[in-house]
Amino acid sequence: MSEVSEIDPAEWALFQDFVLLHRELARELDRRLQRDAGISQGDYAVMLTLFQSPDRRLRPGALGEAIGWEKSRLSHQLTRMAARGLVERIECDTDGRGSLVVLTRDGRRALLRAMRDHARDIRSLFLDVLTDDEKRAIADASSRVLSRLCGATEVESA
Amino acid sequence: MSEVSEIDPAEWALFQDFVLLHRELARELDRRLQRDAGISQGDYAVMLTLFQSPDRRLRPGALGEAIGWEKSRLSHQLTRMAARGLVERIECDTDGRGSLVVLTRDGRRALLRAMRDHARDIRSLFLDVLTDDEKRAIADASSRVLSRLCGATEVESA
Repeated sequence: MSEVSEIDPAEWALFQDFVLLHRELARELDRRLQRDAGISQGDYAVMLTLFQSPDRRLRPGALGEAIGWEKSRLSHQLTRMAARGLVERIECDTDGRGSLVVLTRDGRRALLRAMRDHARDIRSLFLDVLTDDEKRAIADASSRVLSRLCGATEVESA
Repeated sequence: MSEVSEIDPAEWALFQDFVLLHRELARELDRRLQRDAGISQGDYAVMLTLFQSPDRRLRPGALGEAIGWEKSRLSHQLTRMAARGLVERIECDTDGRGSLVVLTRDGRRALLRAMRDHARDIRSLFLDVLTDDEKRAIADASSRVLSRLCGATEVESA
């Protein structure tokens, strides 16, 4: 019961900078996507996930799972995107399992343009700023923490 | 106009793992905070920011700015937290600038308990999984990318 979980200031700073880095990078990438292509990071995540799926369509549940969003947030997002013609909801009564979300032709066109802009921004704001050693360290750390997280979720180690 | 912004597969994987790492770590930390202390990452961010402010109070605008949330998201969050007694909105008519958000005594108690649990989880899921070299690389990369981002936001380099 007497846990020793002290975190020293340097480690706190590391964790907070890591969180801040992600937040500020996401915010600036979002701002540029909005400015240059008129789409948000949320629009982008939805369109990219659909684009990478068979027939460019998915059930809302699978889409939400893939991008890590709750049902109500996704539902609002899809309503806004459908109004702009980027995605379409189609009913799929044949198997009695409800609706599907499909990337439209306009959505595909918007995504491809945004991908080009987004790649340029990811390069200039993130990749080009890292040294090769840092890239390697981040890649190694990411895969190790991620596999630890998978284990932690599956096997509860209270 | 002929931009060369190709990103090779290893670099894409690096960026995507970095995003995924942050997302999965935040999700698992959130799940544990909820399970052990009954509060969400959002509750935590709001309470910590108030706790660190003079007199443990802030204007909603300054609070939203500090945690990077839009007005409507913050407003819903504060309504839920006020109903649970964690924060309080007080009117501040003396200077004609509207309301303030204050951390309550219960909120302070909930935060301190959550901070202990949260520190333990950050250690076991993130800090303890990194080597010293990786910690150094992530710290260096974070500060360099963040200062690049600050420059990019201030001086628009179209």
